[in-house]
Amino acid sequence: MPTLIAFDADDTLWENEIYFEAAKDRFKNMLAPACDPEWTERELYETEMCNLAHFGYGIKGFTLSMIETALDLTKGAVTGQQIRQILDYGKELLQMPIEPLPHVEEVLAHLSRTCPLMLLTKGDLFDQEAKIARSGLADHFTYIEIVSDKNEATYAALLQHHRIRPADFCMVGNSLKSDVLPVVALGGCAVHVPYHTTWTHERVEPSEAERRQYDQIANLGELPDLLAERFASTSQN
Amino acid sequence: MPTLIAFDADDTLWENEIYFEAAKDRFKNMLAPACDPEWTERELYETEMCNLAHFGYGIKGFTLSMIETALDLTKGAVTGQQIRQILDYGKELLQMPIEPLPHVEEVLAHLSRTCPLMLLTKGDLFDQEAKIARSGLADHFTYIEIVSDKNEATYAALLQHHRIRPADFCMVGNSLKSDVLPVVALGGCAVHVPYHTTWTHERVEPSEAERRQYDQIANLGELPDLLAERFASTSQN
Repeated sequence: MPTLIAFDADDTLWENEIYFEAAKDRFKNMLAPACDPEWTERELYETEMCNLAHFGYGIKGFTLSMIETALDLTKGAVTGQQIRQILDYGKELLQMPIEPLPHVEEVLAHLSRTCPLMLLTKGDLFDQEAKIARSGLADHFTYIEIVSDKNEATYAALLQHHRIRPADFCMVGNSLKSDVLPVVALGGCAVHVPYHTTWTHERVEPSEAERRQYDQIANLGELPDLLAERFASTSQN
Repeated sequence: MPTLIAFDADDTLWENEIYFEAAKDRFKNMLAPACDPEWTERELYETEMCNLAHFGYGIKGFTLSMIETALDLTKGAVTGQQIRQILDYGKELLQMPIEPLPHVEEVLAHLSRTCPLMLLTKGDLFDQEAKIARSGLADHFTYIEIVSDKNEATYAALLQHHRIRPADFCMVGNSLKSDVLPVVALGGCAVHVPYHTTWTHERVEPSEAERRQYDQIANLGELPDLLAERFASTSQN
């Protein structure tokens, strides 16, 4: 087995993106009498991208970006009632139900018996802590790390801190951009568990060479067999 | 010397609260034609306290609370231009200059030669990381920890994680509530460095008994002598 298995949280252990999508839909509908929904979607995404450098990831920044987009699209003619609605969309997102995806609980319980597990999530510290607490999954993890971004530098620092060789580390997640490709680049083991919806910002197209360097599974239930196979063949080499 | 010295950041290493106060003043002035500034201040504080459980600490939550307060006080009659102004107050806060307070740089450079230092700050992960980077002080610290709150449980977990006895730990900061009293309660050494402004939420009145259990200094320049004296007398005992 690896020395450490790390799991992404949002859309790997529980659903997250669908709630953001639902909030976006309500936002687009609210502005629809005046603004074309596709145009609203594009404007909101551009505002989010501009604000990412100032706000980072998370629900509070997303809510502020919705407010800014509404101001831009209505040329300031947004009503107090509409702003109040946007605040409510944000507060509802903060209460999103956190229910483990199929197979998650049994696989974490099983793997944690043989190997330390880490929950490694990027985003807003406060939001993510609240979601982890609500998930009821925290006890399966030896380490919980909430970081502002997950890139090659983040993983390199993490491995150095825990004194783990990349080859002994396995990262499991739904985002090729944040969970898979940076780990592959460092020589670590990465397992992609695609989720049906991916936020535009996280979409990347891996090269053929990159594709050969990570595994893909349909759901977390397939992880124990994959790890057994992969790390058995490693130790034979 | 202690095994680990931890420093609070905001209003201990650099100024922070004055920028929030300035943003509040502008917010009160903006609403002043319709709302009494004292009333606005009180309403904003109450909204912040209600939202703390949802938003946590930080600039994005503060900005959302200003927007909500403006909606409440104007009964929804706030204009798009006013909302835009509030967003700007928030974005300006995110750019606040981070300049080390007097003595900070030399004291950190001096102490880091004999003892590992930790920067221990609560708040928004993204904001705090950006401020630490802008401060230019990161290299003095062996550990940087950003937590969502600083209470007895936070300190107990931290000491356990680093395997440090409370008596070998020293925490330095401006907030009696977050930096001093929880550390004193655990039997650690705490040094209070008062700052001229304290956010209402952080104000507490320590008991006489508590007062006898921590030290107070006027500025960080007095810290090395205090530590030398305190830990010299400890090791003689």
